[in-house]
Amino acid sequence: MTQRLKGALAPVLTPFRADLELDVPRFIAHCRWLVDNGAGLAIFGTNSEANSMSVDERLRLADALLEAGIPAAKMMPGTGASSIADAVTLTRHAVKSGAAGVLMLPPFYYKGVGDTGLFDYYAHVVDKVASEDLRIYLYHIPQVTQVPITLALVEMLRKRFPKTVVGAKDSSGNWDNTKAMLDHFAKDGFDVFPASESLLSQALPLGAAGCISATVNLNPAGIRALYERWNTPEGPQLQARADVIRKIFQSPNMIPAMKRVAAEFSGHADWAVVRPPLVRLDEDAAARLLRELEAAGFDMPGFAQSFQSS
Amino acid sequence: MTQRLKGALAPVLTPFRADLELDVPRFIAHCRWLVDNGAGLAIFGTNSEANSMSVDERLRLADALLEAGIPAAKMMPGTGASSIADAVTLTRHAVKSGAAGVLMLPPFYYKGVGDTGLFDYYAHVVDKVASEDLRIYLYHIPQVTQVPITLALVEMLRKRFPKTVVGAKDSSGNWDNTKAMLDHFAKDGFDVFPASESLLSQALPLGAAGCISATVNLNPAGIRALYERWNTPEGPQLQARADVIRKIFQSPNMIPAMKRVAAEFSGHADWAVVRPPLVRLDEDAAARLLRELEAAGFDMPGFAQSFQSS
Repeated sequence: MTQRLKGALAPVLTPFRADLELDVPRFIAHCRWLVDNGAGLAIFGTNSEANSMSVDERLRLADALLEAGIPAAKMMPGTGASSIADAVTLTRHAVKSGAAGVLMLPPFYYKGVGDTGLFDYYAHVVDKVASEDLRIYLYHIPQVTQVPITLALVEMLRKRFPKTVVGAKDSSGNWDNTKAMLDHFAKDGFDVFPASESLLSQALPLGAAGCISATVNLNPAGIRALYERWNTPEGPQLQARADVIRKIFQSPNMIPAMKRVAAEFSGHADWAVVRPPLVRLDEDAAARLLRELEAAGFDMPGFAQSFQSS
Repeated sequence: MTQRLKGALAPVLTPFRADLELDVPRFIAHCRWLVDNGAGLAIFGTNSEANSMSVDERLRLADALLEAGIPAAKMMPGTGASSIADAVTLTRHAVKSGAAGVLMLPPFYYKGVGDTGLFDYYAHVVDKVASEDLRIYLYHIPQVTQVPITLALVEMLRKRFPKTVVGAKDSSGNWDNTKAMLDHFAKDGFDVFPASESLLSQALPLGAAGCISATVNLNPAGIRALYERWNTPEGPQLQARADVIRKIFQSPNMIPAMKRVAAEFSGHADWAVVRPPLVRLDEDAAARLLRELEAAGFDMPGFAQSFQSS
């Protein structure tokens, strides 16, 4: 059993080629840069376009990371799926790989299904995977899934699987909900991750385990520093600095925006490629974004070098 | 190139065993009963729990039907998926199998993506499948996907792929939308299927191609008769009769309700099994439903016999 993964985790952006196929070497290089800068790897999240990939593609990427020597203990792959069969396959693979945990979406096709059906889904995955090493983090992102992870569901799952259902990512952007999760469950060792570093100074004193945030992809060292030193005299300044960068990316086009910036800072134009239904950032928006980042003194030290051999 | 599939199509219920695995012989038997009763097979739709299955499971079921001699010309498999990679795999397989067409959901994970991204998704599938035999039916079910197929998107796709994008299923339940689809596109050979037989007498005079309706699973002959004879003196009576049965099933639990009835009328208790996040119909609701069906004189001739060898 590996140690609990805490701190700043990136829902890792997935690099595609112009023909929309995976760019595996670029994925490995990006993950290595993230780990070198203190980040954990929440591969296959919403920002990873994981639900735009096949199960086989996800298994291939995960295997490639392991073969490249990226430590499984740094990984929290997304394994939830609308298909319960896919969720079992992905979760089983993650556990066999030694991943620190899995971040599980609820099944997101049917709406209005209720806590009983969602409980059954998670319980079935736990039963089929049948491993004491399984650590599930519940993924609450109701604005996308339209299927919430309620506090009542967390309670039901914690009661039945106290050693397995060990945390949650709250991407609702609703602080009251994050606070309620922390207040109800953190004291019993339930690891709550808000989805934005902007909440770290509020959430960490209440027992949050860190954050799993899109912008960790681009600002891993800054967010890691905030996670480590939020309660030192430097804390407020680190929070303010992280917030400035976060705010520049925050938009409905956050994924294309981050990928466009990765293209700029790596020199690999294909970093800007997204899979449909997402659409690339248009050039006007890109120019504006890059100007704002420059004005804010944003940099990605070592990023370009990571991709020189890939 | 096969002939266009029209008439009464069933989004075929998928039989699972108590352990949630596929029951392939029962699936074949159900499809055979449907075809024998005049229905087309929209396998892998919402009512099929298709998005609760893996791609491999769907390919396995489709192959099993072909091997059992069920004609591909009767099939319109659902091949849309949140993953563009899965959509390509499923659509390619359907075309190679000789299916009459494919019913394609939009990618349904991301919300608010807009027509450009949805167009890109369908265009990519068309490009990758690269077959003149491909016939796409767009699947509009916004209350589930939260991603609508707008008239503007249909227009864009028709313009670019006039021989490939040939129809739509409108599951919105919004007659104004169905009528608008018919008014705009039916005259050019675009086949619109409402999702309920209750709309047939309104939709067929405007050029609808039939319906793809959940209850075709249980009442195929009745709905087929309505499709064939709506504009005869018998029409109003056939419509009224179909409506009575439809109304009994219409509820948020329509899938579990239909499966429970299939269990009752086949004598196979496992017909009632659904995959999470769906939940079986509780026994009180089942008793009520069966009483209502009995009062309405509902029957499924030949259904039990279909499963005697499976």
